[in-house]
Amino acid sequence: MRAVTVTPGVPESLRLREVPEPKPGPGQVLLKPLLVGVCGTDKEIIEGRYGKAPEGSDYLILGHEALAEVAALGKGVDNVSEGDLVVPTVRRPLDCQLPVDYCPPGKYLEHGIWGLHGHAAELSITDAAYLVKVPKELRDIAVLTEPLSVVEKGVELGVESYKARLGSPPKTALVLGAGPVGLLASMVLRLMGVSITAVATRPHDSLKARLVEELGGRYIDAVHERLEGEFDLVIEATGAPSLAVQGLERLAPGGVEVLLGVYPPTGELKGLGSLLTDAVLKNKLVVGSVNAGLRHFERALAHLKEANDSLNGFPKRLITKVVPLERYQEAYVWTHDDIKVVLQVQT
Amino acid sequence: MRAVTVTPGVPESLRLREVPEPKPGPGQVLLKPLLVGVCGTDKEIIEGRYGKAPEGSDYLILGHEALAEVAALGKGVDNVSEGDLVVPTVRRPLDCQLPVDYCPPGKYLEHGIWGLHGHAAELSITDAAYLVKVPKELRDIAVLTEPLSVVEKGVELGVESYKARLGSPPKTALVLGAGPVGLLASMVLRLMGVSITAVATRPHDSLKARLVEELGGRYIDAVHERLEGEFDLVIEATGAPSLAVQGLERLAPGGVEVLLGVYPPTGELKGLGSLLTDAVLKNKLVVGSVNAGLRHFERALAHLKEANDSLNGFPKRLITKVVPLERYQEAYVWTHDDIKVVLQVQT
Repeated sequence: MRAVTVTPGVPESLRLREVPEPKPGPGQVLLKPLLVGVCGTDKEIIEGRYGKAPEGSDYLILGHEALAEVAALGKGVDNVSEGDLVVPTVRRPLDCQLPVDYCPPGKYLEHGIWGLHGHAAELSITDAAYLVKVPKELRDIAVLTEPLSVVEKGVELGVESYKARLGSPPKTALVLGAGPVGLLASMVLRLMGVSITAVATRPHDSLKARLVEELGGRYIDAVHERLEGEFDLVIEATGAPSLAVQGLERLAPGGVEVLLGVYPPTGELKGLGSLLTDAVLKNKLVVGSVNAGLRHFERALAHLKEANDSLNGFPKRLITKVVPLERYQEAYVWTHDDIKVVLQVQT
Repeated sequence: MRAVTVTPGVPESLRLREVPEPKPGPGQVLLKPLLVGVCGTDKEIIEGRYGKAPEGSDYLILGHEALAEVAALGKGVDNVSEGDLVVPTVRRPLDCQLPVDYCPPGKYLEHGIWGLHGHAAELSITDAAYLVKVPKELRDIAVLTEPLSVVEKGVELGVESYKARLGSPPKTALVLGAGPVGLLASMVLRLMGVSITAVATRPHDSLKARLVEELGGRYIDAVHERLEGEFDLVIEATGAPSLAVQGLERLAPGGVEVLLGVYPPTGELKGLGSLLTDAVLKNKLVVGSVNAGLRHFERALAHLKEANDSLNGFPKRLITKVVPLERYQEAYVWTHDDIKVVLQVQT
């Protein structure tokens, strides 16, 4: 079967190649991947900066954001049936008793990223317990479920930790970044009735800016405009250390900043003491959040349906490029105006 | 009546002087202060770095950590009676709808600190709604209630935000600092069955180190020993920016650091991005916490009673110096080995 692979650690080793078809073991399912989303983690892996092949394999099949059909059931599987439309979660625990999204590095495997093949292939396998069924009507947009699940967990943490301390949900949110994670966060917050201000580097006439405004949010072009005001909730989705600090400074009393980015190791901070004292005197909270649990995948599907119905088909407009498997290389290059690029593995 | 006062902003203006007796208005009570604890905030005020006199007064009576007797009731007061032993909370909202401990600077007044006279005087007044009744048996230690209330809020935030995400309470805690706040935090965590490691600069044969070990905790002399390991919960009570960063680095997956200190404005941080990425990949949470709500005062009294009964009278040993009003100056100087110094206003 054909699969999009890399040799982890070897920059630009991306290729479409023939590989053996996987066989589902007990408790596993054989999947027929349909659509696979591409994201920043793929980019890191392709550049040789991250990623690990499964035990005994010298290549890694990419693709952790997948929409697939169940092709066959391994022994004992009864929670899904052949032909079901499903989204597999990404992470599997490795000698870790914590909820899987809290397992630390070294204590998990991740499809298409770390030690488990992904779904950018004509067939793939995964554990049946980690599948979320997708209503047929969401076939076109359910490929957004995995990135949205990460947002759902972050927003849940932000809203709940604000509510637990202040007694009512946050009213205002600042979203740093208007990439897929930033826009999905703005979408969810809009559905929750939170007023949104989004900041990114695209101009006001860009698609990203227009999508924020379509959600009823205020868009700030960070290149030309200053960010003002205080916010109950800040979602940090740029991966820029300086913006994470600005987000903390912009928190209203009791405010929560949720860090969803992965940051370059650099970045310097002066006046650390003032930042800490301000965080104490204003009861500020900062939480890092990575990956997601099954419930976040379920909530993501519910929000995709709600947004699809009530926000004029908003989710679909986040998918700015769909590339057939044969032209896979085009899926792994994107412009600043691309939001979500999707590889169409098969129809 | 006699009162310990400062002229805010004027360093070393501390003096014992005659001032007019206060009159309780409707909803207020006249208090006869018995014991007043002294803390770092008093030090800042005495050094002229903080503090504000009430409207229309050029002096501020100190004393925000108080144990008092109700001397007289203002009109409409029915929640306390004359002779009751009480602890007044510190903060009053000023045009702020948030829970009072979440009101930001500028939106509150604080007895003995900012805009309201304190209780280091033969008589004082406060609002009856902000009093906590003290069981007679706790007369000797209830002066610890206010600083403990701040700890109770911080520990509550730490434990609850850990439990909300990981599904079970934290098992291990690192307490940075062995001053009153650090030792009170170790005491509360010990009562909650959390294993404690405390770090401070005193040697192992110091009172502070011995008190940690008496709680069954591990003491680390930061001057000579390295801090190792990861912890579910970190309570930062030193006010040193570098230790707040170390605390964050020492968090286990899903761990929570609670910042209770006030920090010098300085402090530099290199490699901010690595710290942020680590916080994301390990789902770490940092929360600043200041002041406290009434429920934290109630819980403080319950924990003082429990510690008194089950930890061999531990709280009393935190009070290392009691100074009569006449020798008030001795209350406002303390050695590294002092833990809580208390001014005995009257008996």
